[in-house]
Amino acid sequence: MNSILIRHVLLNDKKTNILIRGNRFEATDASETAEASQIIEGEGLAILPAFYNTHTHAAMTLLRGYADDMPLQTWLQDHIWPYEATMTAEDIRRGSAMAIREMTETGSVFFCDMYFAIDGTIAEAAQAGIRAAVGVTFLDGHPLCNAHDQARRLGTWQDMDGRITLTAAPHAIYTVGTESLQTAARLARENGKRITIHLSETRKEVEDCIKAHGTTPVRYLDSIGFLGPDVIAAHCVYIDPEEWDIMAARGVTVSHCPCSNMKLGSGRFPYEEAIRSGVRMTLGTDGCSSNNNLDMREEMKTAALLAKVQGDPSLLPAQEVMKWATVNGAEAFGIHAGVIARGKLADALLIDLSVSKMQPCHNLISNWVYAADTSCIRTVICDGKILMP
Amino acid sequence: MNSILIRHVLLNDKKTNILIRGNRFEATDASETAEASQIIEGEGLAILPAFYNTHTHAAMTLLRGYADDMPLQTWLQDHIWPYEATMTAEDIRRGSAMAIREMTETGSVFFCDMYFAIDGTIAEAAQAGIRAAVGVTFLDGHPLCNAHDQARRLGTWQDMDGRITLTAAPHAIYTVGTESLQTAARLARENGKRITIHLSETRKEVEDCIKAHGTTPVRYLDSIGFLGPDVIAAHCVYIDPEEWDIMAARGVTVSHCPCSNMKLGSGRFPYEEAIRSGVRMTLGTDGCSSNNNLDMREEMKTAALLAKVQGDPSLLPAQEVMKWATVNGAEAFGIHAGVIARGKLADALLIDLSVSKMQPCHNLISNWVYAADTSCIRTVICDGKILMP
Repeated sequence: MNSILIRHVLLNDKKTNILIRGNRFEATDASETAEASQIIEGEGLAILPAFYNTHTHAAMTLLRGYADDMPLQTWLQDHIWPYEATMTAEDIRRGSAMAIREMTETGSVFFCDMYFAIDGTIAEAAQAGIRAAVGVTFLDGHPLCNAHDQARRLGTWQDMDGRITLTAAPHAIYTVGTESLQTAARLARENGKRITIHLSETRKEVEDCIKAHGTTPVRYLDSIGFLGPDVIAAHCVYIDPEEWDIMAARGVTVSHCPCSNMKLGSGRFPYEEAIRSGVRMTLGTDGCSSNNNLDMREEMKTAALLAKVQGDPSLLPAQEVMKWATVNGAEAFGIHAGVIARGKLADALLIDLSVSKMQPCHNLISNWVYAADTSCIRTVICDGKILMP
Repeated sequence: MNSILIRHVLLNDKKTNILIRGNRFEATDASETAEASQIIEGEGLAILPAFYNTHTHAAMTLLRGYADDMPLQTWLQDHIWPYEATMTAEDIRRGSAMAIREMTETGSVFFCDMYFAIDGTIAEAAQAGIRAAVGVTFLDGHPLCNAHDQARRLGTWQDMDGRITLTAAPHAIYTVGTESLQTAARLARENGKRITIHLSETRKEVEDCIKAHGTTPVRYLDSIGFLGPDVIAAHCVYIDPEEWDIMAARGVTVSHCPCSNMKLGSGRFPYEEAIRSGVRMTLGTDGCSSNNNLDMREEMKTAALLAKVQGDPSLLPAQEVMKWATVNGAEAFGIHAGVIARGKLADALLIDLSVSKMQPCHNLISNWVYAADTSCIRTVICDGKILMP
């Protein structure tokens, strides 16, 4: 069985030796002479949890920088949708490969994806050794979202290497009708899969929902039995206090995407209410066309700063946003990882403390959240295997 | 005379050969066989302007991560000020050296500094080959801000290598009295130096100014003859529309510090009014205790996103914020640089287009502002010399 010994590495302010056997941490206080098939000298490095990116559209990496800085409808209708209409399955495979390369280089070991023609995305994730929850997208009337194919896929899927699974991914309440939303949730639950959806991203979505259904998006989804602890809802910018309590009561996980919300002018996420409600918070990058990268370290800093800007510098401290980006994301998808501890799945980053951005080191987590960038990442480990370098 | 030929490098979407002679660009369309004392193969690289960081406190790099995520007064009174009280001139030299190393690695070739015991900062900047405008700080009652010493220093200073100059740097209107503000401005103007000050950073500063002087900070400074085209005012979060017009009429430059304003909970910078007024806008990182890095690329993205978050995704496009971070900063300090053009001072970055964050390259500037990080920087050139690697 494959094993890795990381010697003299900093873990929570203490230098130690970490032993990985198979795909799990076997010891975080191993002997420096423990036997292992591979030895990494960790002197000058710190070990940190890797990132779990809970909302993205990997193949849209092809559209990075294709259109920016314009009104939402112009951006979508005149640029993004026409480009997407030309994309082939091979383009989607290639775009996914680019995304997976970037995610690996920037420290992510998992992504929750929502797109089309997912075979290429699955194949690239499998080959790269990264974890993924790939969405089977529900979008009414879309030629690539045939109801029969979706049901068959969710019903017959076998998880690959324990790393790659599917989700049922209805796009949003304004593109998927009530019946399809319920079908998606039912198929997911019958097959032990999670459910992911864009939710309350813009003010318009809320207004349109009130017009169509007589109530707000969270209340509407709750009324049709959609919400539950298997739901990961992305964005959630326009959710009122009572809706936050409903989300918390149902055990819904939120994927907060601060860069995307800012760049598209969606609005500031209501950190105060989300945190008060106790909802499980995670972070997502969204796709490269609205960010424009897949860098979860940057997403942590952006979230922590956006939380504070209105006047409370103590809101969303570094330690807390780090949890959002790591263990909370892993837990939301049932991945027993996200902390460096005996028995957990061996996902981790080795961070170079000699990079100028990491010095001095009064507080490792503060440096990592507020000061670092990917130039500080030396090694990325996923499921007990070294993905980079 | 030293010369550098950069062959096959991308400049504004065209591959070309760039010749630097001495400290200036001699040609941006040189022959690929032009003679030069040093040749850089630029295939796969793009050349971009370097950064001009118009507001920082370099030595505070020592306090990176020392205290975060707490109310402003607790942070200052219980952590930052007590730490600073222990700092020696040698600490300040060492902190400045760390800052200069980080700025170089992250693509800045200039910084406008405000701190104490500046000899070490000057020496480190001179040795590193970076440009600097080092503040002679005015702070009433501070033991290191003796009026006689400041006057002597500003009066006798000789610029070093055309790279390092001084400014008169009254700390703020709430720490420097009217007479000292006027003295600082007069000394600067008599000696051909610029003036830099913290201005309207918090709501409290405005309220206190109204109590003390019966008017708002910009109106107050204008009434005492302080404002002019030689003034670089940092922060400027709480400035009303008429004040923006006063600032524009006087030719004041603003140093916008988005990460600091967010992290300290100061508030969202009023991009709409600032841009409307036509004031010259530049970017600063502020010190490492409130950011917590000196990375101007990150500052560009943060500014562009914070501008948009309230609903207008077309506000502050990538091309515009890039000007804030480069040519505007250079011009504010009379440095004939900030664009890659014949006759300009040879400051530049070489960017590696093969890094995953830079691919695909539909739009180089969009990728640089929104997607890149310092892992994309291959070479930093300042005043015709290679600072990194």
